[in-house]
Amino acid sequence: MTQAPNRALFTDLYELTMAASYFAAGMNDTATFELFIRELPRNRNFLVVAGLEDVLDYLESLRFEPDDLAYLQSLGTFRNDFLEWLETFHFTGDVWAMLEGEIAFAEEPLLRVTAPRIQAQLVETFLLNAVNYQTLVATKAARVAIACRGRRFVDFSPRRDHGFDAALKAARAAYIAGAAATSNVLAGKLYGIPVAGTMAHSYVMSFDSEVAAFRRFARDFPGTTLLIDTYDTIEGARHAAAVARELAAEGITVGAVRLDSGNLAQLAKDVRRVLDEEGFPEIRIFASGDLDEYRIAEILDAGAPVDAFGVGTQLGTSGDAPWLGGVYKLVEDSRGPRVKLAERKATAPGAKQVYRFAGAGGVFEFDMVALAGEQGPLEGRPLLRQVMEGGRRTLPPEPLSRIRERCLANLERIPERLKSLETVSPPYPVRHSAELERLLAETRARVAAANRPAAAHRSEAT
Amino acid sequence: MTQAPNRALFTDLYELTMAASYFAAGMNDTATFELFIRELPRNRNFLVVAGLEDVLDYLESLRFEPDDLAYLQSLGTFRNDFLEWLETFHFTGDVWAMLEGEIAFAEEPLLRVTAPRIQAQLVETFLLNAVNYQTLVATKAARVAIACRGRRFVDFSPRRDHGFDAALKAARAAYIAGAAATSNVLAGKLYGIPVAGTMAHSYVMSFDSEVAAFRRFARDFPGTTLLIDTYDTIEGARHAAAVARELAAEGITVGAVRLDSGNLAQLAKDVRRVLDEEGFPEIRIFASGDLDEYRIAEILDAGAPVDAFGVGTQLGTSGDAPWLGGVYKLVEDSRGPRVKLAERKATAPGAKQVYRFAGAGGVFEFDMVALAGEQGPLEGRPLLRQVMEGGRRTLPPEPLSRIRERCLANLERIPERLKSLETVSPPYPVRHSAELERLLAETRARVAAANRPAAAHRSEAT
Repeated sequence: MTQAPNRALFTDLYELTMAASYFAAGMNDTATFELFIRELPRNRNFLVVAGLEDVLDYLESLRFEPDDLAYLQSLGTFRNDFLEWLETFHFTGDVWAMLEGEIAFAEEPLLRVTAPRIQAQLVETFLLNAVNYQTLVATKAARVAIACRGRRFVDFSPRRDHGFDAALKAARAAYIAGAAATSNVLAGKLYGIPVAGTMAHSYVMSFDSEVAAFRRFARDFPGTTLLIDTYDTIEGARHAAAVARELAAEGITVGAVRLDSGNLAQLAKDVRRVLDEEGFPEIRIFASGDLDEYRIAEILDAGAPVDAFGVGTQLGTSGDAPWLGGVYKLVEDSRGPRVKLAERKATAPGAKQVYRFAGAGGVFEFDMVALAGEQGPLEGRPLLRQVMEGGRRTLPPEPLSRIRERCLANLERIPERLKSLETVSPPYPVRHSAELERLLAETRARVAAANRPAAAHRSEAT
Repeated sequence: MTQAPNRALFTDLYELTMAASYFAAGMNDTATFELFIRELPRNRNFLVVAGLEDVLDYLESLRFEPDDLAYLQSLGTFRNDFLEWLETFHFTGDVWAMLEGEIAFAEEPLLRVTAPRIQAQLVETFLLNAVNYQTLVATKAARVAIACRGRRFVDFSPRRDHGFDAALKAARAAYIAGAAATSNVLAGKLYGIPVAGTMAHSYVMSFDSEVAAFRRFARDFPGTTLLIDTYDTIEGARHAAAVARELAAEGITVGAVRLDSGNLAQLAKDVRRVLDEEGFPEIRIFASGDLDEYRIAEILDAGAPVDAFGVGTQLGTSGDAPWLGGVYKLVEDSRGPRVKLAERKATAPGAKQVYRFAGAGGVFEFDMVALAGEQGPLEGRPLLRQVMEGGRRTLPPEPLSRIRERCLANLERIPERLKSLETVSPPYPVRHSAELERLLAETRARVAAANRPAAAHRSEAT
């Protein structure tokens, strides 16, 4: 076992320089930051929220260790009084968040932090890292689940994910949004996710013939899946059937065959015919190899008799849209609501809540973003829940099974048109409350006025 | 501090089922696997190899802990004799590899493992995970470095990288291939990479005016970079100049301004003019915000006076090509060379070595892949070095500075045309030795014959 590096320094340097400046200026008033996604990624009509468990675990345990402080001191950038103060640093703020497995849309706060300014600022990098990636993969997995039309799919991504942590989090996020299992054994152990997998081409190549390999593996793992494309897929199917026939006398069955290359739709049809002709209609067909939601939809549209899918690279990297542009912005401090006016990157002021309105059968109709302080619309369901108060969780960690159930129930309730694999127009409606609109106009006018040239000169004179 | 999870179970389940089957069959002869990339990703003309340090650290420390074995037992898939054997498992093989910072091309082995079959197979998932991602980002960073034409660039990716480990490895891989620094403080601490960063928009928004924010920050961090686009970039430049003028009397300078939104090329020109007019030609311009190698090239092609760049999302996710399809294939075992014939996924047999031939000025001319056993061409430089023997490193871990120097020296020697940001044709020449060609033809014919239907029937009869 090795020690995991302490996460306190997992931050952009500017969080620490800003913190040092606030500390020197005595600016540690209460501030509120919100984490949101400005625009949905390409072809996405909704997001599946994930990453909160990591966020809360980090906030609860955040401490600077002596070697962290020694490193910071070695940079020559920070004053000693600030480093001494960091020694006692811990997070004492409040957090409101959408629970994992909730559905979110662009411009909705997924998470809101209210804490002394330095604390609220310092946690930005970790929070964004955790929520951006895990939400990205949970969203991708939901799309794969939609494309699979009720068939099982398995996370096969570890070898192509962006490092060790990504592979663990990909397995977890994919499971939340509908994956039946993961090939990642460590994820299975850490999160209690079902694990799946049988043989690689190298196994088949390790025997003198494909039949010898199949025979051995089926005896070791009755009911297993045989990989049939190492040499020739159709011959492989015949070999699988031959072995199934041979071993039937021993009470051993073959559960499935796996195709991993070539024209999967055509091969699935051909292999199905071979297996049926050979008397094994019960042997299922599992397909893998460069799959994503688009290719799965094509394969099923072509009427291919595939029973389950393995999805690797594209699932764990969200290959067609490999990042989520979540941001974490100051929306309020002791002087009131704050905004940023930067071109195409403006923000909305004030601590906010999101209400969801559902119609017949519970189908989501529209969301309304309102100020956290205002009397919310009574019919809407508030999506942000308090998950941390004074630095402590208000709820125990949620079992993954409950998060998954929430997600699957939510996916049942999104409007059918949002299940398109391409962007639909108009998007799901996200409205502002009248009070939020009023505050937005007011604050923007005030800030623009305060930062006009004349104001700057005034400011210089003070 | 928390314990890092033990990495032994960081594996696809099929590695363990195959291992169990080999164990039951007594098949643990010496086998050789090679890790290679079949095709270069979109727009790539070369790869920068990275990830070896992680690989060697993993191989040296690989052990199954009691709780790993308890978990495996709980799956009900494995026999107890196999689990008992795993208790004593450790890696005793030999590893040959291209060192980090070497340049590689498609179909060249980056790494070769020779070990008892079960060991060599079991490490596949971790090896691919480490090499695929780190090589991906090092390659991306080399492209960014080329686009920057000698200007500095800084890794700003942590918030958008795929999790915690990705952000650390992205900083390291980017530094190898030319990044001047990272914003990731923990990466700075762990790897000794220079760290960089100053202020965010939230800092500016935390003061009554931009000028007040700039004044405070410049006093706390003399020579700093001021972020000038929170409200209006041109006004921001005037405010930065005003603060520089005001603080000059105190001996405090402003080092640079940062643009993070809008039309960066145009704004850089306008801001340069403002700063020059205000008498600050020495204040540099730093640009960030959705940058990658393509946008940097555009900005510089437009003659924009940008002195340095921050590159985040696109660097750490390799956004235009977010995965590397590295594979790890059996090429030889005690029975001789092995191949796979699957459509578009065929492999070349035998343990191999890669020789690089350079021309005038040391510029790379072509590579030759030969059998490891054959007398190599004397003029070529062999790229695969023995880095592990009998499970122990043959070389101490390399200092990151040396890896970086190797990489930068190599990048100087790739043919100029390969520095295009798009795929060039023809690609860099990678030839096969005559002996490898002969073995390839021979082995394919043998394997195809052995797996024809008639052969299968023969096999069934044995």
